[in-house]
Amino acid sequence: MTQTFHIGFLLYPMLTQLDMTGPAQVLGRMPGAKLHFVWKSPEPVSDDMGLTFAPTDTLADCPPLDMVCVPGGYGCAAVMEDEEALGWLRRQDETSRFTTSVCTGSLVLAAAGVLEGRRAACHWAWRDKLSLFGAEPVAARVVEDGKYISGGGVTAGIDFGFRIAEILHGRELAESLQLGLEYDPAPMSGGTPETARPDILAQTKAGMAARGMDDRLAEIERIAAKR
Amino acid sequence: MTQTFHIGFLLYPMLTQLDMTGPAQVLGRMPGAKLHFVWKSPEPVSDDMGLTFAPTDTLADCPPLDMVCVPGGYGCAAVMEDEEALGWLRRQDETSRFTTSVCTGSLVLAAAGVLEGRRAACHWAWRDKLSLFGAEPVAARVVEDGKYISGGGVTAGIDFGFRIAEILHGRELAESLQLGLEYDPAPMSGGTPETARPDILAQTKAGMAARGMDDRLAEIERIAAKR
Repeated sequence: MTQTFHIGFLLYPMLTQLDMTGPAQVLGRMPGAKLHFVWKSPEPVSDDMGLTFAPTDTLADCPPLDMVCVPGGYGCAAVMEDEEALGWLRRQDETSRFTTSVCTGSLVLAAAGVLEGRRAACHWAWRDKLSLFGAEPVAARVVEDGKYISGGGVTAGIDFGFRIAEILHGRELAESLQLGLEYDPAPMSGGTPETARPDILAQTKAGMAARGMDDRLAEIERIAAKR
Repeated sequence: MTQTFHIGFLLYPMLTQLDMTGPAQVLGRMPGAKLHFVWKSPEPVSDDMGLTFAPTDTLADCPPLDMVCVPGGYGCAAVMEDEEALGWLRRQDETSRFTTSVCTGSLVLAAAGVLEGRRAACHWAWRDKLSLFGAEPVAARVVEDGKYISGGGVTAGIDFGFRIAEILHGRELAESLQLGLEYDPAPMSGGTPETARPDILAQTKAGMAARGMDDRLAEIERIAAKR
């Protein structure tokens, strides 16, 4: 019989939903996987664009997880100083097989203090803030440092999911999941700041600024300074 | 002032959530985009793996949509003979700018009768069933036939989303959204039946069979025969 492998996502307000739904789609198809979506109460939680999810577990009643995963999103700054959520992450980390994140979720893990001295991925626009919390930012799609595994920005969560499947079940199962999800992506060029045209990079940064990016970066610096 | 562009996803029970959440993440970042997640009542709707979403609109109160999108999933067979949902799709299609689908969502559009004589994409394992409903299956990541635009299996919904953004706002905006979502995928090989190793293809088909694929295919054939 396949043993149950409990995977919990921290489902907080104003998350970037694809950071969570991407890996959830991949990981949920692993043999024995059980997904948990965890927040303070069972009340529905909204992302930053109008999609609303129902938590399956609360922080208080969630069982010990084999894998805990923190997605990113503009709401991450609030979680970075939420002692209830950070304490839960620390407790799960004590017994987890994998402690993981996607996108700016690594900033939350770093704020919880579990990435001290560890390498981690993050969305390119926020990545350097990891060092304020003692973590080492790495520009890669998926970063592995022992049991701490992190994906880069948003869509990297899908590659992260397949990598976890490969670690747990081997390459063949990971490739089979990929085929089942028809993962044969056809990107345009320029999905990273290194490969994007300079004018597109500037336009993208302007769009982020318009959505309050600078305030959030300042907030993260303030949180780091308080520690 | 940017005009509001209303995008509605049919949010039905037992959908494959990434079919919807992937394009929603991309499309929700287009200027003026407003996302609607539409089902019969405001009660939460569950996917096939434990994730639960709250509809934002009901079929009855949803406004006319600029773009309607049907995601795929094992629950699609039930929707294919649900006259309330099919009638809603037909009415939206009369005034939509784009009528679209991801994965097996094209089978639902085909069952609604709006793909008669049109080319459409679909998940590779279900694609040939489109012809039972008078649509022409095409093996491609994104298929465009006038205002009818469809993505292939699951993860193709992300490429589909960027293509819609390109059509509406031009290549530069689409590339900027890509950069914002760090879309620089790193797949293993074998994400399509044509490129997968034969033993992995066989393993994947066996997994689908174990999840009730054959029953669903038979159901779709029965629905087609009834028309």
